[in-house]
Amino acid sequence: MLITPGKLLAQINSPQDLKNLDQAQLVQLCDELRHFIVDNVSVYGGHFGASLGVVELTVALHHVFNAPYDQLVWDVGHQAYGHKILTGRRDVFHTNRVYKGISGFPKRKESEYDTFGVGHSSTSVSAALGMAMASKYMGIEDKQHVAIIGDGALTGGMAFEALNHAGVSDTNLLVILNDNCMSIDPNVGALKDYLTDITTSKTYNRLKDDVWNLLGKLSSIGKTAQEAASKIENGIKSVLLSQSNLFESLNLRYFGPVDGHDVNHLVHVLNDLKSIKGPKLLHCVTVKGKGYGPAEKGNATTWHAPGTFDKITGEIHKKTYEKPQAPKYQDVFGHTLVELAKANDKIMGITPAMPSGSSLNIMMKEMPHRAFDVGIAEQHAVTFSAGLATQGLVPFCNIYSSFMQRAYDQVVHDVCIQNLPVNFCLDRAGYAGADGPTHHGAYDIAYFRCLPNMIVSAPMNEQELRNLMYTAQLPRKGEAFSIRYPRGQGVMPNWRTAFEEIKVGTGRKLREGEELAILTFGHIGNYAVDVCDKLAKQDIHLGHYDLRFAKPLDEALLHEVFQNYSKIITVEDGCVQGGVGSAVLEFMADHQYNAEVKRLGIPDRIIEHGEQLELHRETGFDPDSIEQTVLLMLESAKQLA
Amino acid sequence: MLITPGKLLAQINSPQDLKNLDQAQLVQLCDELRHFIVDNVSVYGGHFGASLGVVELTVALHHVFNAPYDQLVWDVGHQAYGHKILTGRRDVFHTNRVYKGISGFPKRKESEYDTFGVGHSSTSVSAALGMAMASKYMGIEDKQHVAIIGDGALTGGMAFEALNHAGVSDTNLLVILNDNCMSIDPNVGALKDYLTDITTSKTYNRLKDDVWNLLGKLSSIGKTAQEAASKIENGIKSVLLSQSNLFESLNLRYFGPVDGHDVNHLVHVLNDLKSIKGPKLLHCVTVKGKGYGPAEKGNATTWHAPGTFDKITGEIHKKTYEKPQAPKYQDVFGHTLVELAKANDKIMGITPAMPSGSSLNIMMKEMPHRAFDVGIAEQHAVTFSAGLATQGLVPFCNIYSSFMQRAYDQVVHDVCIQNLPVNFCLDRAGYAGADGPTHHGAYDIAYFRCLPNMIVSAPMNEQELRNLMYTAQLPRKGEAFSIRYPRGQGVMPNWRTAFEEIKVGTGRKLREGEELAILTFGHIGNYAVDVCDKLAKQDIHLGHYDLRFAKPLDEALLHEVFQNYSKIITVEDGCVQGGVGSAVLEFMADHQYNAEVKRLGIPDRIIEHGEQLELHRETGFDPDSIEQTVLLMLESAKQLA
Repeated sequence: MLITPGKLLAQINSPQDLKNLDQAQLVQLCDELRHFIVDNVSVYGGHFGASLGVVELTVALHHVFNAPYDQLVWDVGHQAYGHKILTGRRDVFHTNRVYKGISGFPKRKESEYDTFGVGHSSTSVSAALGMAMASKYMGIEDKQHVAIIGDGALTGGMAFEALNHAGVSDTNLLVILNDNCMSIDPNVGALKDYLTDITTSKTYNRLKDDVWNLLGKLSSIGKTAQEAASKIENGIKSVLLSQSNLFESLNLRYFGPVDGHDVNHLVHVLNDLKSIKGPKLLHCVTVKGKGYGPAEKGNATTWHAPGTFDKITGEIHKKTYEKPQAPKYQDVFGHTLVELAKANDKIMGITPAMPSGSSLNIMMKEMPHRAFDVGIAEQHAVTFSAGLATQGLVPFCNIYSSFMQRAYDQVVHDVCIQNLPVNFCLDRAGYAGADGPTHHGAYDIAYFRCLPNMIVSAPMNEQELRNLMYTAQLPRKGEAFSIRYPRGQGVMPNWRTAFEEIKVGTGRKLREGEELAILTFGHIGNYAVDVCDKLAKQDIHLGHYDLRFAKPLDEALLHEVFQNYSKIITVEDGCVQGGVGSAVLEFMADHQYNAEVKRLGIPDRIIEHGEQLELHRETGFDPDSIEQTVLLMLESAKQLA
Repeated sequence: MLITPGKLLAQINSPQDLKNLDQAQLVQLCDELRHFIVDNVSVYGGHFGASLGVVELTVALHHVFNAPYDQLVWDVGHQAYGHKILTGRRDVFHTNRVYKGISGFPKRKESEYDTFGVGHSSTSVSAALGMAMASKYMGIEDKQHVAIIGDGALTGGMAFEALNHAGVSDTNLLVILNDNCMSIDPNVGALKDYLTDITTSKTYNRLKDDVWNLLGKLSSIGKTAQEAASKIENGIKSVLLSQSNLFESLNLRYFGPVDGHDVNHLVHVLNDLKSIKGPKLLHCVTVKGKGYGPAEKGNATTWHAPGTFDKITGEIHKKTYEKPQAPKYQDVFGHTLVELAKANDKIMGITPAMPSGSSLNIMMKEMPHRAFDVGIAEQHAVTFSAGLATQGLVPFCNIYSSFMQRAYDQVVHDVCIQNLPVNFCLDRAGYAGADGPTHHGAYDIAYFRCLPNMIVSAPMNEQELRNLMYTAQLPRKGEAFSIRYPRGQGVMPNWRTAFEEIKVGTGRKLREGEELAILTFGHIGNYAVDVCDKLAKQDIHLGHYDLRFAKPLDEALLHEVFQNYSKIITVEDGCVQGGVGSAVLEFMADHQYNAEVKRLGIPDRIIEHGEQLELHRETGFDPDSIEQTVLLMLESAKQLA
């Protein structure tokens, strides 16, 4: 089903086409753009609330600025659907987030209008400042560099690092703060309250229009008038608008707050700002999900990426199944943590802005004093957890595998070097699916396995996850304990199994066989089960071992493997360089075993978005590919014989 | 030479011993503590300026707070010498930073007074907040949690993340901002200017004493009076002290600025703050190097860690050598970058607060518009560099190997996924020496090698470093290019060699031999040269290959190696899990080679501080150990034969 754009939107094939629209047309375009997004997402799914919230801002930006010459950098990127639709991708927009289709995030390879790839948050100011500094160095004065960053993303430390630099950079940088009080979940922290204070301050609001009017009038007259405007503005601000000082104190000129849904006012303001040199910030207040009733009124978290829905009723489609389904791993984590926490009062839960994504929201609801959303702040989340551990508490810090990259030093410096017993649950380990390369959890096995005092584990199913979590909360003297599991469902509809301790560093022999053994790590092992079952019917009997721990390795198990099999396939939903397959090779070298080893996993290139199975197939470790690898290895052995 | 402490200091064996000192004695103790530090560092070396700057603060903290019950967390940690001396380590203080001696940083294993290990900056607020939250959860109301953080460390994003969380935490947290306008180099960024503004504001200073006096008087009377004090204070602040809003806007109550060198006033203020609940910040102005004339008046960067010096004249001892010496790798980097930048106007230099440590200060001086110190902000440094690269510039981003851990996600997300040609120079790769485990660059080969679009190289000498840098600045379409090199000297006194392009992914055959080949990566290869030379005299002829690239591997070279040698030793100054030795094993497995391979490098445990050679010896890859490994492998072969 192809979505038909509105009359005006149908004519917008590049931002050039909206330069000459009048005020009424801009409003109409916003309306049509909003409808187009609603129509598309309701049918095809995708991120929703964020892009609806910036419809007017997007249209205004492309009306005022001269992209791609001017550089627009969208933070996080799931707010950029409107931007994509206006920059030549309207007619392929239905392929959004689909395998081989366009990306759900801005992407440099996809369009010259996508100046900087994003997916993780808080990067836009750094990137735009780099661009602005380059222009300054190259003597290009007319180029504009705009970072559009949400208030959630602003809690990420690197945004602050960038603002601190921007304030002394003397570059042509405009930061647009898209303030909707939300991350994916409601935004948290002191900064949020502060921004609300500014926005709702009566003193402030009484004055801001006057200031703006004055500024607008004067800035168009000439240099002296501009200076006068600037003086007046600063004077008023420093005395009466002291709330704006957070940004002013970082030497960014602060403008706003403005209504982010008044497209013509935005155009006016942005045009004014174009002529003001130096680093500056426009505070723009928006509503996530704006213009679509159910999203505006309903739960913003639900409407962040609701899946497909009925656009008339606002009913989100739920799949129904005849048989009971296996739960999502994240929900097994969420419920199990509460179960464990009820019995162990030392357990605490920590998430950096992913309560619903990690299902820690279950504990946050049941035990609000023991579960923390610390904001988009992975670094702080880890060291905060380390601080809790020093006091004898048992933190479970849940961070997506790809986001854990942002707290790597904190894991090394604050946890491993100090040998503190912190538990890390790495959700979205392996291919993340439709979110694509920024969200694939490809590297965690490699980047954790090289750290001392780090246990690296992965459950093959729900029961294993529960038992690993149970084990991780038992008292131990030191060592970080990481448990990685993928996005999506497990394999056990009846998953509330009794807890059982797992001896750290032990794997499982699932099946004995001849000649060739498959060693798997984590959920991907279920593919190997299928392959073994299928080949067994053809009288090919493979060994299958679930390693369960990439570190420490189960050496007894591996000795058994290498004494009994001459061909080994390792399978992991992680990068093959330095991953668990390499750990097996290290074991072999250390013990002077010879065997033919084929390592399957994520190859050494950037893998785009798609369903997990599609990506496994593309990169050679879906069930069929595993089977092919088995047969090839056995075949070549026969030929040699 | 044992340093004799002053009379009073000699009696302080734990903080208990200074609880009852009177005002005059506290002043005397500060004086003696300062002398003791000067005496020690002048003879034994170590960090200097930072600890001198917090002498009064340290004495006041230990006088007022009840450590180790109360939790003091020192950010970065090189300001903690006084703390160490007062907490039972006075008589072993001369072993500071020496192999097997005490650490130059706080360390949990070393003392119960060291609540949190530090070395990298900006972690203290997160850690202390974790501790405070644990106390709150456990219902412990009287415990104090104090983070002492410098203004430099405050530019690190994770400190901001922590403040944002602290502001809504309702915990008993005191952040002491030790504001001396310095990192190791002068602090940079907008925040610094802001802090200076507060400190020097006349309006502010006229009022602050009144506020303090009022607050002090009222807070000791009772609850109603406290509330009144609070109201008055807030009233005054919101109208007239609006400069303090940066912290207040994050919902931290702001106190100060106070003179950080008036110990009795500090005692008074800290006692007042003890009774004020909730998160709060005390702004304390200090002078780095305070009380030692040459350090106060001289270059603060020089006096950060001056080495040994004559304490009377202030003359820093310089080693003199008969023969010309090889330069430090960092200086080869610094000078070479300027040389290259003169010829290639696209080159830009970036450092996160390490101008002197990385020698980028050479370029910053010669080409101030092309070399940036962005503050303690590794994350921003990397993404800022990526932003520069999008505009066609050629960034050289210099970050110590262990600090690069803090920008790991930015390397993955902003550089590698986008395939941007950013150059990374990783100084202090391998053992860092006296700074110890927080600063050892142990993991970078493993954590970079697993990333797509990443070239991983290491020069064996100065000429190689120059040629790698030359190669890295030649135009290329994509790929990050990382060059790792160690702290300290190279091997070539005449190091200004002509530039020559190195084909990416090519190694060097240095010596042909029989049976056994040593494959080395980087500077550590010079050990292997010595071993080969020595054994050649005993008619044992080893092959020696300098891999130069851990990624991409020189496959042609490796085929040659495995076709000609049955025994292989890999040597790297990096972790053996997932390092370059493992890359060689992966190559072997992929090409079905059999050989006996022994991987030498940093083992899977935390290695403490010491001279690099001492640590290489301890962990089995100094020249003697390499030789032993060679002989053992050859011997066992003979025995088998």
